Amino acid sequence: MPRFADRLAAAVRAKGSAVCVGIDPRPGSLPSEFRPARDTPAAHAEAVGAWGIALVEAVAPLVPVVKPQLAFFECFGAPGFRAYHDIVLAAQERNVLVIADAKRGDIGSTAQAYAEAHFDTVGADAITVNPYLGRDSIEPFLPYANRGKGIYVLVKTSNPGSADLQDLAVEGGGTLHARVARMVHELGAEASQRGESGWSSVGAVVGATHPRELAALREAMPRTPLLIPGYGAQGGSASDCAAGFADDGASAVVNSSRGITFAFRSGDHAARFGDARWRDSARAAVIEMRDALEAARRAKA
Amino acid sequence: MPRFADRLAAAVRAKGSAVCVGIDPRPGSLPSEFRPARDTPAAHAEAVGAWGIALVEAVAPLVPVVKPQLAFFECFGAPGFRAYHDIVLAAQERNVLVIADAKRGDIGSTAQAYAEAHFDTVGADAITVNPYLGRDSIEPFLPYANRGKGIYVLVKTSNPGSADLQDLAVEGGGTLHARVARMVHELGAEASQRGESGWSSVGAVVGATHPRELAALREAMPRTPLLIPGYGAQGGSASDCAAGFADDGASAVVNSSRGITFAFRSGDHAARFGDARWRDSARAAVIEMRDALEAARRAKA
Repeated sequence: MPRFADRLAAAVRAKGSAVCVGIDPRPGSLPSEFRPARDTPAAHAEAVGAWGIALVEAVAPLVPVVKPQLAFFECFGAPGFRAYHDIVLAAQERNVLVIADAKRGDIGSTAQAYAEAHFDTVGADAITVNPYLGRDSIEPFLPYANRGKGIYVLVKTSNPGSADLQDLAVEGGGTLHARVARMVHELGAEASQRGESGWSSVGAVVGATHPRELAALREAMPRTPLLIPGYGAQGGSASDCAAGFADDGASAVVNSSRGITFAFRSGDHAARFGDARWRDSARAAVIEMRDALEAARRAKA
Repeated sequence: MPRFADRLAAAVRAKGSAVCVGIDPRPGSLPSEFRPARDTPAAHAEAVGAWGIALVEAVAPLVPVVKPQLAFFECFGAPGFRAYHDIVLAAQERNVLVIADAKRGDIGSTAQAYAEAHFDTVGADAITVNPYLGRDSIEPFLPYANRGKGIYVLVKTSNPGSADLQDLAVEGGGTLHARVARMVHELGAEASQRGESGWSSVGAVVGATHPRELAALREAMPRTPLLIPGYGAQGGSASDCAAGFADDGASAVVNSSRGITFAFRSGDHAARFGDARWRDSARAAVIEMRDALEAARRAKA
């Protein structure tokens, strides 16, 4: 089985885009054709599931990867988890990779059960994981590299509160997030983790909202695929993201959620597309973002 | 609505026990009456759900609180999540509090959705949360104190890998886990978080496997309820836990999972009870643990 980084690089090449569409549904923000019929968790889950599949169909020709955010499905209980699962299957039928944004992290045997949940039962291609519990909480995910699966470890997250712990200076020099980056680099350097391209199955999450740290972390983890959240609605620009890219398709994907999926609700897109043409709005937002990222990469090179 | 700490203290008094039963099902370890009929996620979910409800019925008169571990339900997909939900409802019908061991942690709007998932949709009484993303990832859970809900923030976890990051010395002095403890203490000191007893709705997870840190953290967070995992199978003893207790029922609960639920499979309990009497084995294990904790508390006082 090709390694995750090789699969990701091939998908980025095939689609000509490093855009990751985040799937963060809130029932009140959906296009009117998907507004829930009743105000129950099951009806909400049904609505977000149907919308998520339609979204994947709409953007599949344009994007290599999508990223469902588990919280926005879990909040509807079991039917919500089913909706997440259905969206993953729909993405894979259309050759779109899936990063499960779960941010799980637990002790060994429990981490193993989370890997089974998202890789075996649901079939996601990658999962985000939290490093606070240490190396032995990440190791259970690593053998899945043999089956083409990847992980993205939280290193420096996009929120303001990321400074509270992640930016603390730690013994031995550097910040906590730099220490986590070293662990990510080491785990990913093992031969079993690396694809033919030399890129690792162990990726890192670094927010677009921290361009200086992004440049330093790109250098500290030269063969680590980056998942860059925080573009658009959270304040990150294309030029903020440019430092995250290297000359390989696996090097970075940039996520936008609301800025793509709910663009039709406001500003320019509301006038041009509106509710009825939300699919065209999402596609246009993906293309605008793709072009902005490409221009920023060229300006940097 | 009484605050979580007051509800917990009342439950500890009513049951005369600080034992928390961890619900970490693995289909291959269940008593034979619950062995799954088929090797599918749905059949496994059905088996662990039925077992979990039977377990709660068996131990309800003896324990104030149970702690389902989400990973062991999530690994069966949507039916697994349904089984978790059913166990929570069964516990509450029997006046047993529920800590959802989810270790979630995400940026603000996403953390809010996790709070809705476990507090509103499922109805758990408390949830474990991961602090790596910082204060703004914890704050969305805090308003639920008004509705009697609590959180337990991971401070020093029971696994060996907890040393990798949590024990690093950080700027300003002390370790990362001590810094997290300070944040937990501060968040919990706000009036809205405190019960009539003065104990907080913002708790902390500290492993029994680190008795020295447990004593220091008890002192650093004098009004923070502790959830102490790592008893038994992971190596923590009753005397290791003693430092976690103060003179209030909310001060600490000690979790054991396999050591209670699967005691019937080995050693003394296999001979005394065996598979058919697994309920008696679980009850006996709870009573042994309760008495050992009580003896260790008296020895310390």
